[in-house]
Amino acid sequence: MTERASPRVLLASASPRRRDLLERAGYAVDVRPAGVDEARRAGELPVAWACRLAREKAAAARAGGALLVAGDTVVHRDGAVFDKPSSPEEARQTLTHLAGRWHTVTTAVFVSGPRGQRPFHVDTAVRMRAMTAQDIERYVATGEPLDKAGAYGIQGIGGVYVASVVGSWTNVMGLPIEQTLAALELVA
Amino acid sequence: MTERASPRVLLASASPRRRDLLERAGYAVDVRPAGVDEARRAGELPVAWACRLAREKAAAARAGGALLVAGDTVVHRDGAVFDKPSSPEEARQTLTHLAGRWHTVTTAVFVSGPRGQRPFHVDTAVRMRAMTAQDIERYVATGEPLDKAGAYGIQGIGGVYVASVVGSWTNVMGLPIEQTLAALELVA
Repeated sequence: MTERASPRVLLASASPRRRDLLERAGYAVDVRPAGVDEARRAGELPVAWACRLAREKAAAARAGGALLVAGDTVVHRDGAVFDKPSSPEEARQTLTHLAGRWHTVTTAVFVSGPRGQRPFHVDTAVRMRAMTAQDIERYVATGEPLDKAGAYGIQGIGGVYVASVVGSWTNVMGLPIEQTLAALELVA
Repeated sequence: MTERASPRVLLASASPRRRDLLERAGYAVDVRPAGVDEARRAGELPVAWACRLAREKAAAARAGGALLVAGDTVVHRDGAVFDKPSSPEEARQTLTHLAGRWHTVTTAVFVSGPRGQRPFHVDTAVRMRAMTAQDIERYVATGEPLDKAGAYGIQGIGGVYVASVVGSWTNVMGLPIEQTLAALELVA
């Protein structure tokens, strides 16, 4: 078996989880976080918001013809978004809303390369188990919820509160790797 | 909020993943691996095998009235079992069989305590993405497949090859934590 050189990809995101997934899939990753205004527009639906941000991050990265991946993950239910909490109190509120219920994690991905552009998004349904006030307090105290959409990380301590997953689970980590690799092959 | 002392549980398993899940759920874990003959009997169906081993591990741990968790995880499809590989070659064979297809991960759990016994099992459907020979070679070379039922770890490097999950994802790690916690509450 001949070992191929790892193909290079630009990642328009500072997310260590997206980088890790691409690296584990065999890519050499150049991180180029894109500074875009991430505010949600009035009336903008959660999935539309994520798709717009992925596209804007891709544009801001100015990849030229290089292989590029941009992504944005939104945690939502019934049109309500559970964003990265800005404080422990907001993390507590988010977890109180998510505990014991189903929600949707959508990652919008924008892939581009010499052979064109492939924007897409993937939904995964996630059910968190019921959490007591003590569970929530203990989890918030770890600090993990503070930089995560939905105030939990499936790969970390938060995984113990994820009861059921229907769909891509790398999507819940922030990048649906199977679909992303397929898109990269189409544009490379 | 008053902090409760962590309840103690005996774990009749050497699996670091089961221990980790119980600890993250707030239990103080005493590990007491049970030495039982894990061979599958002729004609024994995969789920029946796992349930029997969980029961035998629980019996061998001689927990008395203490809280006890025993578990056995089997990866299977169409009656065929994909056990922990005994060599890199067997790991390659298993991954070749699982790649690109759905399989089932069943964890049989035997929980007991002062108020009785709760045996149960949980199935999760998992689809692995297609893997090239190079993907398989690279993954086997990490060593991770060698001590895992099904020759992959969803929590580790192998997670990148898991395309879809339907059901409990802690079950795929080796212990369906939501159901286990519910059973523990019933027998404690």
